[in-house]
Amino acid sequence: MNASEAEPVGIIGLGAIGGGVARSMLAKGLDVTGCDINAEALNAFAADGGKVLKTPQDLGRDCAIAFLFVVNAVQARDVLFGAGKLADALGEGGIVVSCITMAPDDAVRLGEDLAAHGIVMIDAPTSGGAANALAGRTKFMLSGPPEAVARAEFAFDAAAEQIYNVGETVGQGSTIKVVHQLLTGVHITAAMEAVALGIRLGLDPNRIYEVVKGCAGNSWMFENRVPHVLDGDYTPLSAVEIFVKDLGLVLETGKQARFPLPVAAAAHQQFLAAAAAGYGREDDAAVIKVYRDLAGLELPAEKD
Amino acid sequence: MNASEAEPVGIIGLGAIGGGVARSMLAKGLDVTGCDINAEALNAFAADGGKVLKTPQDLGRDCAIAFLFVVNAVQARDVLFGAGKLADALGEGGIVVSCITMAPDDAVRLGEDLAAHGIVMIDAPTSGGAANALAGRTKFMLSGPPEAVARAEFAFDAAAEQIYNVGETVGQGSTIKVVHQLLTGVHITAAMEAVALGIRLGLDPNRIYEVVKGCAGNSWMFENRVPHVLDGDYTPLSAVEIFVKDLGLVLETGKQARFPLPVAAAAHQQFLAAAAAGYGREDDAAVIKVYRDLAGLELPAEKD
Repeated sequence: MNASEAEPVGIIGLGAIGGGVARSMLAKGLDVTGCDINAEALNAFAADGGKVLKTPQDLGRDCAIAFLFVVNAVQARDVLFGAGKLADALGEGGIVVSCITMAPDDAVRLGEDLAAHGIVMIDAPTSGGAANALAGRTKFMLSGPPEAVARAEFAFDAAAEQIYNVGETVGQGSTIKVVHQLLTGVHITAAMEAVALGIRLGLDPNRIYEVVKGCAGNSWMFENRVPHVLDGDYTPLSAVEIFVKDLGLVLETGKQARFPLPVAAAAHQQFLAAAAAGYGREDDAAVIKVYRDLAGLELPAEKD
Repeated sequence: MNASEAEPVGIIGLGAIGGGVARSMLAKGLDVTGCDINAEALNAFAADGGKVLKTPQDLGRDCAIAFLFVVNAVQARDVLFGAGKLADALGEGGIVVSCITMAPDDAVRLGEDLAAHGIVMIDAPTSGGAANALAGRTKFMLSGPPEAVARAEFAFDAAAEQIYNVGETVGQGSTIKVVHQLLTGVHITAAMEAVALGIRLGLDPNRIYEVVKGCAGNSWMFENRVPHVLDGDYTPLSAVEIFVKDLGLVLETGKQARFPLPVAAAAHQQFLAAAAAGYGREDDAAVIKVYRDLAGLELPAEKD
């Protein structure tokens, strides 16, 4: 399909990921409308050439396909069925693409409630972070009815480096995202615990980074987050509070399934410790400050 | 230096890593002599064209540079100063390259005791695993006196994909290896905990592997070890007991430094649980069996 013939696409939530996805769709020539309660985010998207609307309800009248990039299931319900009135505006034949990390059970219930409005849900959490989103290199791990997925494919293609289609049922995408977040959350805390230990033992953190990055101890998160510590830059590309939530979802999912997750639980405690110490809105690399504060470490100087 | 003019090199311990390093040196034309208390390992190296000697003492008479690939500091001391009598045989001017993962304090003491024999120690733990060792793609994270490092460089070059020179003092190599093993140990247990949770939630483990490998949840260890589970192959390329030891060293090092390591401690408990359940000699991917046994999971069928 030629992009100019494609259906209009709406994006609710123009933050780190949603804003990047919206701009990458715009760059591919799609007809994209953005919506955000944050006026600054909305104006920035307009300045970049995007159409903007102030309410989800307005957006739902113009676009039959709406991507949701809000923070959690509660916000999604508010946008869809509460103050946002998106579900009524979209109506029969609409598609809601939920890119939110939420409990699989919440995703299933959301899909059922949308179905009652004649709306099909695609369960499509993402991976890759803000920089990749802006560059059109988001990974989607999605599940949903094949017809809806085929209809929305042009929009995913415009924003995606890779699309993992993990099933035809809402909930499967969220399930694999929960499994994935167990790993990302543990890897961030392990990275910070290891670098902190190394500093305590007298190693140069730049040297630790160089060696681990080249060896079997590396992880995507180690490679991505440790530079924030080395640069002393805790600008929240993804905040501590996100993993307070996401590892919380992992543990709640484990609890519902009566499945013990001792390593994830230990990692979650470190995010909670960071939030307790006042670092909740900083970049998640700020977990290292929990170790710093305890042991009086000297970290690389922090940027103003 | 032309390899044929190079000094003879001895390798004590022809197991997964030592055997691979010895063979990769042999493939580069070095004059390599191997030694192992395991007759099978010794005969296999001879069959591959290596010189072999039955005792470290004999080896020390023929080679002034000896690489140690034994399991721990206790075995190293036995080889050097106990039954093996290697230190006396090497004597003044010898070089001992310790490739063992040991506590930094133990490395320092070993270096001091070797110095009393006129022997210089290079502290050179490795990363990369058995397959890479055999292919000459080991990574060394080494520290030691520059003159000794320069003299042994031809031997490292023959076996190494990368050499990280982290300092001039024995103990620095072991310190960075301890930091590194915190990460590898946590990443293995996180991989097994995540895959086990995914199976419990009804996901296909092959699909989990494919998605995570391509996304931000990936780690070197996830990518390397999860296929052992998918193939049902727990042949010990690196056994559970190795991480019972290595994360034990991490925690002991943390204790000595009065530094809390909650995530590493949780991971260590899972290796201990695997050992308690009788999987100590299996591949470290067998940590997933702890979760299987608890929750009655069905894992991919095990090979005979």
